Amino acid sequence: MSLESLQAENTDTIVALATPSGSGAIAVIRLSGPNALTIVNSVFKGKDLRQQASHTIHFGTIRDEGDKIIDEVLVSLFIAPHSYTKEHVVEISTHGSKYIIESIIKLFIRKGARAAKAGEFTLRAFLNGSMDLSQAEAVADVIASNSAASHQVAMQQMRGGFSNELKQLREQLIHFASMIELELDFSEEDVEFANRLQLRDLVLQINKVLHRLIVSFEQGNVLKNGVPVVIAGKPNVGKSTLLNALLNEERAIVSEIAGTTRDTIEDEINIQGITFRFIDTAGIRDTFDIIEAKGVERTRQKMLQARLIIYMVDPVQDAFDEVAIQVADIITLQIPFVLLINKKDLLTATQLEQYQPFNPIFISAKNEEGVEELKEELLNQVSLKDISVDDVLVTNIRHVEALQNTQASLDKVLNGIDNPITSDFLALDIRQALHHLGTITGQVSTDDLLDNIFSKFCIGK
Amino acid sequence: MSLESLQAENTDTIVALATPSGSGAIAVIRLSGPNALTIVNSVFKGKDLRQQASHTIHFGTIRDEGDKIIDEVLVSLFIAPHSYTKEHVVEISTHGSKYIIESIIKLFIRKGARAAKAGEFTLRAFLNGSMDLSQAEAVADVIASNSAASHQVAMQQMRGGFSNELKQLREQLIHFASMIELELDFSEEDVEFANRLQLRDLVLQINKVLHRLIVSFEQGNVLKNGVPVVIAGKPNVGKSTLLNALLNEERAIVSEIAGTTRDTIEDEINIQGITFRFIDTAGIRDTFDIIEAKGVERTRQKMLQARLIIYMVDPVQDAFDEVAIQVADIITLQIPFVLLINKKDLLTATQLEQYQPFNPIFISAKNEEGVEELKEELLNQVSLKDISVDDVLVTNIRHVEALQNTQASLDKVLNGIDNPITSDFLALDIRQALHHLGTITGQVSTDDLLDNIFSKFCIGK
Repeated sequence: MSLESLQAENTDTIVALATPSGSGAIAVIRLSGPNALTIVNSVFKGKDLRQQASHTIHFGTIRDEGDKIIDEVLVSLFIAPHSYTKEHVVEISTHGSKYIIESIIKLFIRKGARAAKAGEFTLRAFLNGSMDLSQAEAVADVIASNSAASHQVAMQQMRGGFSNELKQLREQLIHFASMIELELDFSEEDVEFANRLQLRDLVLQINKVLHRLIVSFEQGNVLKNGVPVVIAGKPNVGKSTLLNALLNEERAIVSEIAGTTRDTIEDEINIQGITFRFIDTAGIRDTFDIIEAKGVERTRQKMLQARLIIYMVDPVQDAFDEVAIQVADIITLQIPFVLLINKKDLLTATQLEQYQPFNPIFISAKNEEGVEELKEELLNQVSLKDISVDDVLVTNIRHVEALQNTQASLDKVLNGIDNPITSDFLALDIRQALHHLGTITGQVSTDDLLDNIFSKFCIGK
Repeated sequence: MSLESLQAENTDTIVALATPSGSGAIAVIRLSGPNALTIVNSVFKGKDLRQQASHTIHFGTIRDEGDKIIDEVLVSLFIAPHSYTKEHVVEISTHGSKYIIESIIKLFIRKGARAAKAGEFTLRAFLNGSMDLSQAEAVADVIASNSAASHQVAMQQMRGGFSNELKQLREQLIHFASMIELELDFSEEDVEFANRLQLRDLVLQINKVLHRLIVSFEQGNVLKNGVPVVIAGKPNVGKSTLLNALLNEERAIVSEIAGTTRDTIEDEINIQGITFRFIDTAGIRDTFDIIEAKGVERTRQKMLQARLIIYMVDPVQDAFDEVAIQVADIITLQIPFVLLINKKDLLTATQLEQYQPFNPIFISAKNEEGVEELKEELLNQVSLKDISVDDVLVTNIRHVEALQNTQASLDKVLNGIDNPITSDFLALDIRQALHHLGTITGQVSTDDLLDNIFSKFCIGK
């Protein structure tokens, strides 16, 4: 289905609760569509909303068909095209009662609105040209963001950083595609409007950018979804003491502000804005019995899911040789790991020296010594230290795939230049690259793709 | 502490999340106080908010001290005194991400705002004269309302129905109090400015109103908190089939609108806007074994907590005489009950006739016959059919107590008129009545009282 027909289809007026459905002081009900103003006005007692300016707020009551007051409300008006969706948008701020919310939404539906599907407001914003598809996708990421890092990459993408980068590549390619297609019109005359050397340079240059973007996904993904970590080690080496030390500090920060405390955070810490997720609690507890026969295989499986392993040893409990064997075992997993040696206060200089080949971090979990060094090392391990605030990072697997497809098409173009093929084939490959690039920002889209993207949104956005 | 000193104390700028803390499309952060505008303006990139009119909305970004964008937001301005609290109020509509909400609230706190306590916005609305105390209390009730009935009484109270009724009584009493106090100035001349017969009539008239209001609490409480009901009867008479029939119908209505579905409702039904709550599930299951020796006492305790008992019998399983014994037992509890006779389709006309003295309702739980009659009877039993939409009902135990105290003081006044006492004692009793009346609307209040009331609010209201 084409964008145009989707646009033509999405012309009714939709309504949804835009705030979370729990109990709170206020709730916001949002309508978008050509009849948003008249529907609300028909049940609103106060000023005539149709006579009011955009971006104004009006106090009044919402009344049902029997003139019974459902609530005293504030109505915010956004007159088309000056709104999120570029349609008329009306937001009703009500008391946060579920009964009131339900009553008002049902009333609007009786007056001709339709319950919005997940992400439908943002779908309309996209269809009406407020934002491109990658920006629309970033809206959901912004809402889901729970750390400075995930927030930053989502915000960058929502504000068009990624789109701008792609737009430039696209424009240059489109220029060449048109030139080559022009050659087709003059095919009998055997002219070359598109300089093949320049095209080759451009494709190489674009492929370099594509490569950078594709590679950035590893970091983008870490920033967006956090770093899965397993803390492993023999029982009683101090793993839970360490974890608690890390967690408690974080919790203290989080609980500062009443009313905004997060859902219970289990085994997730935030270091300089990066989330480190400890692979499910049960899993971590399991690793505590790593040396027990039956626990070993399960723990190994858990460790293989990790992006990073913290392997903790108690050098008083285990002699150096035993530790060396454990470390050798970890190395076979081929997962980056940090060797953490506890009870540093009980070690001699010679002993400390002995461990150096493993690049360990020495701590005293009990005295919370060395915890800062560990954090530093965790950040080092995910190589995020040298990412600048303005770097464009890809965080979406769909985008990576589209970038890889673009790259494959451009490789064909390169090949076509080096082993000359006719202009029409060359044009086809360039168009194919443009197509893949276009799926990211939504110049090219299908119903299925849009459904897939927007159904993951929350209702009301 | 006096109202004046409380007013003087509440002059800083407060901030809180006003929407529920779960995940949703948008969140609203609210500030109130003299610096609300300047605090928001200091971190807002867009128009100069201090130059804008009240009740306008402005798009822009919130940036932290490092100029990093925290979010793209809509800012709504309510310039004092045209706001809920009569102070400057600013509402920030952000993306519903916990990270963003936390970051923005923390930023505002760094810029000089203070995290609001529960109910503090409404406390300020009360202190600044936007509403009286009973109206302020009703705001929390409106938010908590979950049925048409609880919503209606709360809305009535919030919009001042109850306050107006009290205000009239108060004004008339104040008039007499002043008259009598004037007599004190002329006490040596033995004059009577206040006509004792008129005062007597007024007091009788006020007492009548007070009585009506006090009595209304029974119904007000039912409307606000629902009707606790126990369904009892021997095992296998069809109780759970009946309950499911009632519950399923309700659930179907509730789940119509995506995104606004209520928290799981267990054993609670809504009949014409009135909530009937089945005393805890375990309790109801217990009543299923009412005739078992060990279950009897527990079931009896549960039934004594009910406002209403539905006693269900299977006339095929039990002969009439056995049912009569069970009913006699229920009668001793002195709780209103409905005798529900199942399997009506299997009864002869003679059998049906035999049960008539018990005023039973005949149903067929399996075929869902008679369910409507049962609902009708439940409504009858709580005598709510003849309450008009505009009736003022008392729903708050604090108000009932204050009304009773007022009544007691007025009884003393009556006594003082009939057995003449000196004007100063009479004036004292009237002032005492006025004091109690004043605690309802907050002309008289203490720190403890206000703390007690507003601490039950949610944060952000």
